[in-house]
Parts: sequence; structure tokens; C-alpha cells
Amino acid sequence: MPELRKDIITDRWAIIATERAKRPESFSEERVQKKKSETVCPFCSGHEEMTPPEVMAYRDDKTEPDTPGWSLRVVPNKFPAFITEASYRERQVGLYKARGAPGAHEVIIHSPDHEKSLAELSYGEVTQVIRAYKDRYLELKEHPWLKDIVKYILIIVNQGKRAGASLEHPHSQLFAIPFVPPIVRTEISVGNRFYKEHKQCIFCAVLDEESNKEQRVIIDNEDFLVFCPFASFMPMEVWIVPKKHHHLFEEIDEHTQENLAETLRDTLLILFEGLNDPPYNLYLHTFPVNGKEINESYHWHLEIFPRLTIEGGFELGSGVFINVARPEEAAEFLRSIKKRLEARDLKLEARR
Amino acid sequence: MPELRKDIITDRWAIIATERAKRPESFSEERVQKKKSETVCPFCSGHEEMTPPEVMAYRDDKTEPDTPGWSLRVVPNKFPAFITEASYRERQVGLYKARGAPGAHEVIIHSPDHEKSLAELSYGEVTQVIRAYKDRYLELKEHPWLKDIVKYILIIVNQGKRAGASLEHPHSQLFAIPFVPPIVRTEISVGNRFYKEHKQCIFCAVLDEESNKEQRVIIDNEDFLVFCPFASFMPMEVWIVPKKHHHLFEEIDEHTQENLAETLRDTLLILFEGLNDPPYNLYLHTFPVNGKEINESYHWHLEIFPRLTIEGGFELGSGVFINVARPEEAAEFLRSIKKRLEARDLKLEARR
Repeated sequence: MPELRKDIITDRWAIIATERAKRPESFSEERVQKKKSETVCPFCSGHEEMTPPEVMAYRDDKTEPDTPGWSLRVVPNKFPAFITEASYRERQVGLYKARGAPGAHEVIIHSPDHEKSLAELSYGEVTQVIRAYKDRYLELKEHPWLKDIVKYILIIVNQGKRAGASLEHPHSQLFAIPFVPPIVRTEISVGNRFYKEHKQCIFCAVLDEESNKEQRVIIDNEDFLVFCPFASFMPMEVWIVPKKHHHLFEEIDEHTQENLAETLRDTLLILFEGLNDPPYNLYLHTFPVNGKEINESYHWHLEIFPRLTIEGGFELGSGVFINVARPEEAAEFLRSIKKRLEARDLKLEARR
Repeated sequence: MPELRKDIITDRWAIIATERAKRPESFSEERVQKKKSETVCPFCSGHEEMTPPEVMAYRDDKTEPDTPGWSLRVVPNKFPAFITEASYRERQVGLYKARGAPGAHEVIIHSPDHEKSLAELSYGEVTQVIRAYKDRYLELKEHPWLKDIVKYILIIVNQGKRAGASLEHPHSQLFAIPFVPPIVRTEISVGNRFYKEHKQCIFCAVLDEESNKEQRVIIDNEDFLVFCPFASFMPMEVWIVPKKHHHLFEEIDEHTQENLAETLRDTLLILFEGLNDPPYNLYLHTFPVNGKEINESYHWHLEIFPRLTIEGGFELGSGVFINVARPEEAAEFLRSIKKRLEARDLKLEARR
């Protein structure tokens, strides 16, 4: 029977439509083989002049900016959705309202490797990516011109064309934007309400629930719980939530940062292996920039959405998702893939 | 420069990112040719036994239900997201809440033709589709068992695989559901607020604005205005809004119904011609079932979303769309396609 489930974090209902459920294995359909695109890739080493000048890079000591020798490179998006020069002042356009879109829109090129997505990089390489997230976050938060403008920094990954990636070479995008995204605003207000009632962070409550029940858990290690949320909006949706309560990702310590990289790599490798290199979106939700110093009710986390089905008119017209996979079965399937990988000695969670 | 624009109907901002804008023509990329699927189509004439028994059909007088001889056929969805047997009572599942999903989920098979989408059907055939929308709407609204359960009836079209259609044979879906969709709730509350302040329906205000400005208008006839909304969420997004204020689609009269069919066919033919048979979603927004008798501030309408770009991590993680086409340019392009079709004497708006 189909079932309505409430996502308690965003106060939205999802429809788990088991009548139309597929077996988890069936999502691993044959995919179009990646082929090296014929056009030259602006994110590959040796083509640094094809991007705007880099704003940061991890590179060999003796190499110059915008030349080869880097292991990770951050450049402004050539076609930005937010730009430094704009004004945020609201203006009337006939009946309507418009504003400029001030902010920053950067691309974090994960590695010089054109082929390898995060799932295929080494722990060390993914640690570099996480470090870049933090470094850019802190830099932009204190940016002399932007710091009075930027209200939120959203970091995302679009992996694969069917997840909206316009360039194949694996990369993340960072948006420093002049408003708090509606979904984050909702998360915050729902969290505040929950905290007032229960004197507990709503994410911490979810962590307790999930680690006790275990049925939706994929990875449970020292610092992180990885699970399919109860009211998943999409098949194989996975959240990575730090066990230690903190509202700010950007205050992550060195040790947790390394463990996040490994947990993220392992999670993405499980999806890669089980779903045959699926397209996915990933985003990092943290508290708004320059919010209150301590926040007991918000809790930073990562959400991953494999794009195995397509949202149609029902989702667009109602704002409610129909999900054709039961989260419990999705988690069971992903745990079985994890076991398969461990048997092949791929050192999943080796350090833990 | 990218620009933030507010959709005054749903109170949501869109980002019109002109820096990454493509020329409208470039959206008309070469598409994978439709091929008749190898498996047998359950929606084709002669395969009536492959669907659940029909709940309605327009058919030749002497033919029996669930046999050939129909020109339009309505059947329950074989894999429903909402079912008559479920209970809507909320229950606690550990920390979370769940409910059954009572309601109905029907498929309206537009015609026996496996190939022709709404854009390619005749005016008469599309009029039948609109009539079926109304007939099913009225039937379900008064359904003895459902009428105390159903709070909203949402009718949608997913055309093309990339718009989420799982079966190729063109069809609509009707969802009779036990809640008012969040997006409609927002439209209603925003509309109420606007009405209190301006003593005018917000949709009527938009109609005034758009028909005066003309720059975003595609079709302007006796009963309908067709235009690209100011804060379009997607490239080539098009709304069809009736000029006469009414909150209920299901009270549409015979004449307007015919004109709606023609206006819809023409609009979809323009998209078909200009964008090379694009995948799209379409939905019909009307007032909730059994709402108040008169509503001055809600206004039924159709929204069409060609799926030319893919929403990525930014959209999922923020709830805000980035649209890479300026609505004014989209409308100009679609008007030029309309002219081209008129020159070929395809009788666009011939009756008007």
C-alpha cells in the first residue's frame, strides 16, 4: 500500500508508492558509457587559461597560479548565477519585483583527473575537496566586499549529465548568496519549534532514532551516521549526519574532516557500485553565515540524491514527491553492496 | 547580469541567469527519435485487458466496455500512488508520522493513437480530453466513498520520458488526494493577502499587466491569455490563464472548453515546432474540492514546463530555480514560431 510519510526536518510529506516500487537492483540499469568529450575540457590540467583566473589552488610549491601543477583548483564560474557587481536593492517592474543577484559562484575542480568522480578518488583526494569547501567557506565569509551581502553559502555537486552537470570533469559548485534558501529557513524554523518542545536538536533526535532502529542505516562510524531518511523524497536518497551536534560545518576539526571525506567516499562508492555510476546531486546544509554564535537546534549535514527517477507534473504541481522505493529496502540493498565491497577488501571504513 | 525575480503568485524567487543564457533556438537540440517500443502497449486499442477495467470511455454506441471502439479511455492507474482502501489516520512510527494514501489515481488515455501527443491531435480530439478532465473531476468530487476524503484533484500530463512519462502512449493522470498540495495552499494564501490589499484577484492583476505589456505574451484570444511568466522557473515555461475570473475549472462552459482545447493545442504545437517535440509537464491548478462557493481571489489556470534543462543540487538544496532563459526572449521566440505556423496555414486560432 502506498504510504504518506512526513519528513520531520522540513515538514514536508513524501508519498512512498510501493505499488509502483521496483526492486532496488532494477535501478542499476545500463547507462550510456562515458566518452571523453570531443571538445577540449576547460577543467583539465594544461587548459587553465580557459577558465577565469583561479581564486585558490592546492599546488606544487614552485608552480605559478593558472598553470599545471595543481591537485585541486577553485575558479569563478564562467557563467555565474551570482556576481559581485550586482545590487540587491528591490525594484518594482510593473506589477512585479526584481533584484540584482549579488554574491559569488565558484567551481571547485576536485582533481586534474577528467574521469574520476568523488566515488573513485582516494581518501586523501576527497579530504582535499572537503578542505577546499572549508577554506572557501571561511574566505568568503570574511570577504571584505561580500561579508555584508552574503547570507548563505551553499555547496553542491551535480554528478553526471542527468543530474544537471554541464561539464563532465568532476567538480563542486559554491554559491555565496544574498538570502537564506527557503528550504534552509524551513529547516531552521522547524528545528527551533522542535527544540522548544523537546529541548533537543531535531537532527540529534533523528540520529538516536535511526541508530537504535538500524533498519535504514548504511554506515555507522565514530563520527557519522549514514542512512536513508524515513521520508526519502527519491529512491536511494542518503543523508550523512555528524554525530556531534554542531550547527556550523565550517568549524569542523581536522580529524572529523578526514573522517567526513572517508565516509563520503565510501557512501558514494556504494552508490557507484550498486547503481552503476548513477547521476546524483549532493548538497551541504549548514547554518546561515554570521548567524548567532551558538545554535542548539540546527545541525549541519549532507544530503545525496541519486537521480534514478524523474520528477513529473505531480511533483511540480503539488510540491510533494512520489518515491517508488521504500527507504528500508533501499538501505538494505545499499548495505548488501557495502558488504560486497568489504569482501573485495576495498578498505571501506578501514581506519575506523 | 543575473537577476532575481519574484513569482507573485507563489511568493517564490527565481534566478534569471542571463550570463549562462542560451539562444532560444539552441534548446531545439536533436532529440532521440521516438521508436515504437518493442513491448506491447497497454494503452493501445486491442489491449484493453492489460489495464484495470475502464472507469469511463467515449466510445461507439454499440461497443462494450474494455473492448476497442473508444476514442478516449479512462482507467485506474495500475500502480497507484493513492488508493481507495487506505486510511488517512495519522500514526506514529517511532519518532516519525505516517498516514495511508487514500484517494484515486487515474489515467486518461488521450486517443487510440500511440504516437500523437496533444500537440499533434485535432482540435476535436483535444476538446475530448478537456471534457474528460471535467467529467472525471465532477464524478470524483461526488463519489460516494471519496467525497469525504478527497480535498484536491490534480490533473497533470508528463509528455516524454525526460519529463517522467513511464509509458510512451500519450495520456494524462488524475490524482484525487486527501490534502491540498502545499503549492496550491501557498497560491491561495498569497491570493487572499493580495485580495485583501488590492480588492482584486492576483491572477486578474497579472492578466492586466501581461496583456498591457505584451512582451511576454504568446497568444491573446477571446477567452485566454498565454504567456511566459515574469519569474519563470524554467526556460520556455508557459501559462494559460482564462480571462474570465473563476476559481473552479470544473465549472467551465461548453464554449470556453472548446476554446481551451484549441488554445492548449496551439500552445503545445508552438512548443512542438519550436523546440523539436520537447518533453514537458503540464498541470491544471483549480480551487480545492468543496471549497467555499464563491472565491474572489483564486483563479484556475494551466502551467506548462518544457524540460529543457535539469534541476540540480542548487534547486534541490535551496528550493530556488535558476532559469537560463529570459522570459521576454522565450516569448519572442515562441511568437516567431507561431507566425511561422500561421504562414503555413495551420489554422492557429482560425476560429477566433
